[in-house]
Amino acid sequence: MIRVTIWNENIHDSEDAVKALYPKGLHGTVAEFLSAPGDVEVRTATLDQDECGLPDSVLDETDVLVWWGHVAHDKVPDELAQKIVDRVNRGMGFIGLHSAHMSKPFRKLLGTSCTLRWRDGEFERLWCTAPRHPIAQGLPPAFTLDEEEMYGEYFDIPQPETVVFTGWFRGGEVFRSGCCWTRGYGRIFYFQPGHETNQSFHNPYVQQIIRNAVHWSAPTGRRETLDCLWATASAEELTSKGEEVPRF
Amino acid sequence: MIRVTIWNENIHDSEDAVKALYPKGLHGTVAEFLSAPGDVEVRTATLDQDECGLPDSVLDETDVLVWWGHVAHDKVPDELAQKIVDRVNRGMGFIGLHSAHMSKPFRKLLGTSCTLRWRDGEFERLWCTAPRHPIAQGLPPAFTLDEEEMYGEYFDIPQPETVVFTGWFRGGEVFRSGCCWTRGYGRIFYFQPGHETNQSFHNPYVQQIIRNAVHWSAPTGRRETLDCLWATASAEELTSKGEEVPRF
Amino acid sequence: MIRVTIWNENIHDSEDAVKALYPKGLHGTVAEFLSAPGDVEVRTATLDQDECGLPDSVLDETDVLVWWGHVAHDKVPDELAQKIVDRVNRGMGFIGLHSAHMSKPFRKLLGTSCTLRWRDGEFERLWCTAPRHPIAQGLPPAFTLDEEEMYGEYFDIPQPETVVFTGWFRGGEVFRSGCCWTRGYGRIFYFQPGHETNQSFHNPYVQQIIRNAVHWSAPTGRRETLDCLWATASAEELTSKGEEVPRF
Amino acid sequence: MIRVTIWNENIHDSEDAVKALYPKGLHGTVAEFLSAPGDVEVRTATLDQDECGLPDSVLDETDVLVWWGHVAHDKVPDELAQKIVDRVNRGMGFIGLHSAHMSKPFRKLLGTSCTLRWRDGEFERLWCTAPRHPIAQGLPPAFTLDEEEMYGEYFDIPQPETVVFTGWFRGGEVFRSGCCWTRGYGRIFYFQPGHETNQSFHNPYVQQIIRNAVHWSAPTGRRETLDCLWATASAEELTSKGEEVPRF
Repeated sequence: MIRVTIWNENIHDSEDAVKALYPKGLHGTVAEFLSAPGDVEVRTATLDQDECGLPDSVLDETDVLVWWGHVAHDKVPDELAQKIVDRVNRGMGFIGLHSAHMSKPFRKLLGTSCTLRWRDGEFERLWCTAPRHPIAQGLPPAFTLDEEEMYGEYFDIPQPETVVFTGWFRGGEVFRSGCCWTRGYGRIFYFQPGHETNQSFHNPYVQQIIRNAVHWSAPTGRRETLDCLWATASAEELTSKGEEVPRF
Repeated sequence: MIRVTIWNENIHDSEDAVKALYPKGLHGTVAEFLSAPGDVEVRTATLDQDECGLPDSVLDETDVLVWWGHVAHDKVPDELAQKIVDRVNRGMGFIGLHSAHMSKPFRKLLGTSCTLRWRDGEFERLWCTAPRHPIAQGLPPAFTLDEEEMYGEYFDIPQPETVVFTGWFRGGEVFRSGCCWTRGYGRIFYFQPGHETNQSFHNPYVQQIIRNAVHWSAPTGRRETLDCLWATASAEELTSKGEEVPRF
Repeated sequence: MIRVTIWNENIHDSEDAVKALYPKGLHGTVAEFLSAPGDVEVRTATLDQDECGLPDSVLDETDVLVWWGHVAHDKVPDELAQKIVDRVNRGMGFIGLHSAHMSKPFRKLLGTSCTLRWRDGEFERLWCTAPRHPIAQGLPPAFTLDEEEMYGEYFDIPQPETVVFTGWFRGGEVFRSGCCWTRGYGRIFYFQPGHETNQSFHNPYVQQIIRNAVHWSAPTGRRETLDCLWATASAEELTSKGEEVPRF
Repeated sequence: MIRVTIWNENIHDSEDAVKALYPKGLHGTVAEFLSAPGDVEVRTATLDQDECGLPDSVLDETDVLVWWGHVAHDKVPDELAQKIVDRVNRGMGFIGLHSAHMSKPFRKLLGTSCTLRWRDGEFERLWCTAPRHPIAQGLPPAFTLDEEEMYGEYFDIPQPETVVFTGWFRGGEVFRSGCCWTRGYGRIFYFQPGHETNQSFHNPYVQQIIRNAVHWSAPTGRRETLDCLWATASAEELTSKGEEVPRF
């Protein structure tokens, strides 16, 4: 059972326009469609909670962390952001939704500015550019969103391992809208749709993609520490004694 | 003329064993072989200088920053490390030598722990695993170093764009010894040899590799700021008015 | 249930030295350990059979094709090799073992010469260089093979998507021993151990790796044809009519 | 001086609509703008010539081969296509223009079907998605072509090393329009614009991109043969005798 924690800064969620679309908050909606199939265990966490909702006890029980943030990126303490980065490096999955591209954990994981071109209220069509990828399973060659925030290139990210979806905006822009990376023992997926005043999280394809991403990024193993390992003996010496090379 | 700044924490350099090998300091030796061909302009900077040797005035005139650090990684202020990361994202080249794998700028650029397995005093043979790459030019299929610090896998780095050299250690280990990444407008090269009590920086192949890396990572363009760009008009509107899409 | 076909040129298998190690043939041994867990359906095919053992009826029922060939690469008709390439592009998995690096289907899939440096009878240690990868699951940081054919760099392959294992040979060489690629809807894994006069296919780690590779390369979807698709209407026209973009 | 050979099937070139745009043929136009700066030596070759215009004597003097073909892909003998593949693997650069995506040499180099979605007569905007790449130098963030053949995803290619340009089509499609790969010692660039009845080869940005690609793909070294190399002695034995590891 994959244990998913959905983190939301939970600020826009009290605005009327957002409440109308997402009465349980963005995190509540994502939690609902993720838990529906019954194959993952979902909890939510928000910025206004103690320790920003992510004390060690919660992180310790999180296999995949889903992140939605926008206006409060700087309210997340550097220490917490670094803790998340370390946990990803040790195996935790991380899914950044929409404006999470500017969040501290995401930028620290990628090492770039993660900046982009943007504009509100645009028609988008997402094309699948990696049909073999697990995150593309069950998706058509293209699907549309009547209105999304336009995020356009140049998107300042390290070259993704796979660009699973590429966005076309009616206003003339393109975007690498669904991107994968590995960092240490952990996997990362970024997905561009999910603006708070748009309906994307109610779209069945968007839901399928996020569900696929949860399964794809679930840890297969964990690394205990992130220290260098001093080899007291060479691999050859160990082999000659019938011993194994120590694990990290 | 490429402007190179060689930064050294300059601490081991006053130890007898190191002085015997590198009387002008590690930075002095690297400066010497890099400036010999006359096609780059070299300066050095050390941790003990004002602002750690890297005030804005120096960074402003640096095309490629070469980094050697080991025991004093934590003496480099976070602000300076972030400033270097930003400059790489804006176009500056970065070459991390040997134990720079644990330096703050390098780890922030890569987003992983950059940890590894290690042991002193080992015979190493470096194999070229990407002969087409510009950094491999002029190098043989393999070359040897009589003694180097063993750095072994698993090396916790994001998958390199190219692994130009792979190290073989007589004690039984392998290592991705020469690795390339792009971050924003900037290029990064990491090279494993260069332990302070070994002679690697006097090896002509090592020198050739670092020279090649300087040319490969020299900026071709710079980005002024690292902000997102709000598009007041769509690309289609701009085109209809005969205007260009604005640059970052 | 994944349907695996193990193809073997089945020529060395009648030599005494090979028969002693693999009385049921190399294909028989691989079939045995692959079918043991009961989660895959295995059949074998050999060059001496009708249509080289791979008539359409067999390929039609193959999810993952495992390939062992050495001295008879040129006995495989170009048409059959191209048919395999097409099926991989349409979704079939392909696992090339040992000297399959010079086989027609493998070289056609990669587009390079796939040549390498080689020598017999060497001690090898394989290091895991991508611990998060599904093919690395259940494997230690390193394991050894008392004797294998040395395959050394430069290995003329397109840059792998992931180098899961890197080989260290006591004679001084390194090799990208476990490599992944995607071609179209299909996944490819190459694994270097498996010389006919060595015991590698009896090694539990080697067996685990090949089992993992079967699961990793099993198709998630198939493409019916490999034709270009002429769009009678634009995506925008289709959307305005409430129609979907056609699939390949 | 880089020696470029521009190959054209030269069939559409005698149609009125094409002659009006490209009176010297597509190859003649490309030759003109490539030779203008005076830093490359250009020759042209066409299908109707002896040995399809590419006898060994011409290939021997070619550093970068530029390819335009459309309706006569199957008129290029398999042997010639394989010869080109081998030369790329040995160091020659290859630039495929527009419908060259279905040409024999290109498909053999990539190992996929290279199929795509298409439609005529569409407005295109090309976005730069890799501003640091040498092929992007001198280019704006985006530029437009009033009319081009729409080539849309899914483009069945191996994941490019870099996607330098991504195309946006007014009809709703996206495309990886400028893609890079390495095969052996050779570099490959594919560029989507260049339909015979459109004016793209007169566009200064298109010309700049092709010029940049010629410089980027020019060989830095050649490999004499494409054979495996039998190591009579191990690397360790060679080192102990003071000998070098032999080159391919």
